Amino acid sequence: MGTIRNFLFIMCDQLRADYVSCNGHPTLHTPHIDALAARGVNFTRAYCQSPVCGPSRMSFYTGRYMFCHGATWNNVPLSVGEWTMGDYLRPLGLRTVLVGKTHMRADDAGMARLQIDPVSPLGVLVSQCGFEPYERDDGLHPDQSADPNLAYNRYLRARGYVSGNPWHDFANSVEGPNGEVLSGWYMRNAHLPARVAEADSETAYMTNRAMEYMREAGERPWCLHLSYIKPHWPYIAPSPYRDMYGAQHVVPARRHAAERDQPHPVVAAFRRHEESRSFQRDDVRHHVIPAYMALVKQIDDHLGRLLQFLEAQGRLADTMIVVTSDHGDYLGDHWLGEKELFYEASVRIPMLVYDPDPAADATRGTADERLVEALDLLPTFLDALGADLHPHRLEGRSLLPLLRPGEITVPWRDAAFSELDYAFRPARLDLGLAPPEARACMVRTAAWKYIHYEHFRPQLFDLNTDPDEFHDLGDSPAHAAVRATLHERLFTWLRTRRTRTTIADTNVDARTAGTQRRGIRIGVW
Amino acid sequence: MGTIRNFLFIMCDQLRADYVSCNGHPTLHTPHIDALAARGVNFTRAYCQSPVCGPSRMSFYTGRYMFCHGATWNNVPLSVGEWTMGDYLRPLGLRTVLVGKTHMRADDAGMARLQIDPVSPLGVLVSQCGFEPYERDDGLHPDQSADPNLAYNRYLRARGYVSGNPWHDFANSVEGPNGEVLSGWYMRNAHLPARVAEADSETAYMTNRAMEYMREAGERPWCLHLSYIKPHWPYIAPSPYRDMYGAQHVVPARRHAAERDQPHPVVAAFRRHEESRSFQRDDVRHHVIPAYMALVKQIDDHLGRLLQFLEAQGRLADTMIVVTSDHGDYLGDHWLGEKELFYEASVRIPMLVYDPDPAADATRGTADERLVEALDLLPTFLDALGADLHPHRLEGRSLLPLLRPGEITVPWRDAAFSELDYAFRPARLDLGLAPPEARACMVRTAAWKYIHYEHFRPQLFDLNTDPDEFHDLGDSPAHAAVRATLHERLFTWLRTRRTRTTIADTNVDARTAGTQRRGIRIGVW
Repeated sequence: MGTIRNFLFIMCDQLRADYVSCNGHPTLHTPHIDALAARGVNFTRAYCQSPVCGPSRMSFYTGRYMFCHGATWNNVPLSVGEWTMGDYLRPLGLRTVLVGKTHMRADDAGMARLQIDPVSPLGVLVSQCGFEPYERDDGLHPDQSADPNLAYNRYLRARGYVSGNPWHDFANSVEGPNGEVLSGWYMRNAHLPARVAEADSETAYMTNRAMEYMREAGERPWCLHLSYIKPHWPYIAPSPYRDMYGAQHVVPARRHAAERDQPHPVVAAFRRHEESRSFQRDDVRHHVIPAYMALVKQIDDHLGRLLQFLEAQGRLADTMIVVTSDHGDYLGDHWLGEKELFYEASVRIPMLVYDPDPAADATRGTADERLVEALDLLPTFLDALGADLHPHRLEGRSLLPLLRPGEITVPWRDAAFSELDYAFRPARLDLGLAPPEARACMVRTAAWKYIHYEHFRPQLFDLNTDPDEFHDLGDSPAHAAVRATLHERLFTWLRTRRTRTTIADTNVDARTAGTQRRGIRIGVW
Repeated sequence: MGTIRNFLFIMCDQLRADYVSCNGHPTLHTPHIDALAARGVNFTRAYCQSPVCGPSRMSFYTGRYMFCHGATWNNVPLSVGEWTMGDYLRPLGLRTVLVGKTHMRADDAGMARLQIDPVSPLGVLVSQCGFEPYERDDGLHPDQSADPNLAYNRYLRARGYVSGNPWHDFANSVEGPNGEVLSGWYMRNAHLPARVAEADSETAYMTNRAMEYMREAGERPWCLHLSYIKPHWPYIAPSPYRDMYGAQHVVPARRHAAERDQPHPVVAAFRRHEESRSFQRDDVRHHVIPAYMALVKQIDDHLGRLLQFLEAQGRLADTMIVVTSDHGDYLGDHWLGEKELFYEASVRIPMLVYDPDPAADATRGTADERLVEALDLLPTFLDALGADLHPHRLEGRSLLPLLRPGEITVPWRDAAFSELDYAFRPARLDLGLAPPEARACMVRTAAWKYIHYEHFRPQLFDLNTDPDEFHDLGDSPAHAAVRATLHERLFTWLRTRRTRTTIADTNVDARTAGTQRRGIRIGVW
């Protein structure tokens, strides 16, 4: 029986890896996240499997690469046939529970085919990618498509924020100089505080809900996925956080004039998106990034509150805690806004893991720059419970040998991978591509990042000499051999993904010898 | 409303493409198959998606490449999440019915996860890869693992063949000179006729069952998968067929001494299998191949009976008929027995398609050497009904433009693909590979066949100068550029498979424009 009974799997939305102080942000101080890093391991080269909310999350939840689980963009359903975190953890006795966002879209056609009633307990479970939806809230509720029963809206109304859609009118709106309500959907309003009290904001509310769950759960083991909606846009933060940061706290954009000379066609198309054009303006950055920082700072304080709660409940002794994000946010770096593509600002994620087991004492407070992938978490959880890692289906690796190094150092992976389906984005139309053609994939080694695009030349960055990724060597004649090697690395990776998922490798050997036993004789004279 | 209402989808098991007279066999005359070829199109370069029963069939039934559907060898379950022929055809009003073999192994774990009772109507359907099992019989029933309720055994007993397992003791056994029962599991007994009357043999029985179904079906449209068990081993044929062929009718093995010089390591390992060692002996070939030929000849006669029945029922006017096979049989070619690997004897399949529509009159009796794949059939059926081809999920192409050429010649594919997972075979152990390492894939163009093996050098054959595939150019320095091109072709193919299966491409465009409509504003100042 190991130490670990529970998992607190905390995800932020769109939190850049370098917007916490333990990863070096110079003006944004996140002492509670830093304290967790001091108690655990800070994986400084962790990568999401796709720099987009939905597909990234489905890789976390299924433990599989994006083009294996197939939910390749936001609102692309995850097939009802895909196994999820809950399918692995529930049989081990853990409730697997959601508070917050998953970006899961249910596979209605798949459920209809298998006669699963979407409102039955099973239907709810597969519609929520395997989580019990203690509180499901994806955090974007414009009037045009708001859920009429949104729990957070009911909460706000009960707290006196009276409106048809208080999520928008209070939590994600601000007040103008004449008391007029200004919408958070417009970044020009990001300099003003939200119309909601801090204690009633989304981050506070989700933290409260997580604590309510843990109180109710009692001694029964659980995996709680606390999935914050922030610092994802709308970039609206409540007081007092909004007032903590100004233009003087904004770090300069990581961009270089050279990037605009003969840019890669796909990158150039993304730079023509409205969010990129907005974030190319320094006035926009100075206006909006302080709000983003405020939202991160607020999360940090609530994580402090949550850790205090866990300590008081005695849960720090038996709970593994992870803090991560689904992807980053360009905030103007590389002349881009939002996420997607594969620059570090987008594809690298924070990944802090606290392991209460004494065997992990030696690594507490260390940073580990080995390459880690989002899909490593699910095998890590299983390994921490001493359970089967299902290597015929789960494509990641347990981080336990890194958290608890033994006598023998395990050989670790030498490359991380990420994928993108930009069929749903204006860039695809701009480039004149059919939906299946708008695809790209990345391999990142210690020294290089190589990105393959369908129909276009690749990108290549020398991460040793150009860690800022300003100088694209994708068509540099001197680097043809490096590109060829990394191109082949992608092919090898594609060929060796887990594609025989219905039978475990451990059963293959038994069957290899079993033909004769079953009485089948092949080619016997 | 088109002409076609029904599909008679006939599969033989392990029937080599060149063991019918319309494909040039010099001593095996198959007039009924030839007559069907004269009424339809003979696709002379048709390839299975894997030269093994189970995975090949699952590609026929799902319309997807092997490492996409994941049932990569015999008895590897097909995931309950995979859509099958019946899922596409039933909503169009067709009963989708099985008589014979599928080699489907049910995904018990997947069904348990989704709370599907295996004996419920839905459970039966997904356990039978989407077919109504009018008669399911995979054709291999050794005493050690025989189904106690096998319908064919009940039939035989009712016909007076009294035994615990009459499938073996009568249909697949012979009588020695002293009246002793000799098992068909041993090829040394293949020269003697089965202990069953021809009219009670498996091929006759399955043909009868197909006709029974069609009689019962009345005017309701159907897709009937008549899936013969033969000429697959046990190589035991009933009289009078067994006596029709002798050593003098056996064509020489397609093999060359040069093939044994520095053979490819994987091919060499397969040559060490017992079935290969047996078929390397000419005495075995002369003893066994006449039985194989007899089984083909018997099928041909029953197809004649079946076609006569269809004509009498008026079904030739509204039924598309396909005759194909899951893969071939080496019969000693290339010093190999059985199937697997990617030589033509194994990977090429017969593919005859009769299309009753008058638009197909121009192609009747023609041979078409364009590259066709097994997974083209399902889109062909859907196209014949004027239905959606589900191109986001189905990876093949409708053959209708080839059967009914219009004013414009469609551009056709320039390569066919096939895959192999030999984890379950002794060759894998022989080569010291772990289960996931025993994989290979083939690309075949008009001129070349290139085979990629994990951990070993590739194979390459120049099909123009070496149609017999005797001279492996896999390490020829002069062919490095050809290999590089075909290697890249495989990579491109892997990247462009259908991996976003839960949303149709036609819906992507609508969603690309829909963000704004749903009230989501991204990066708007």
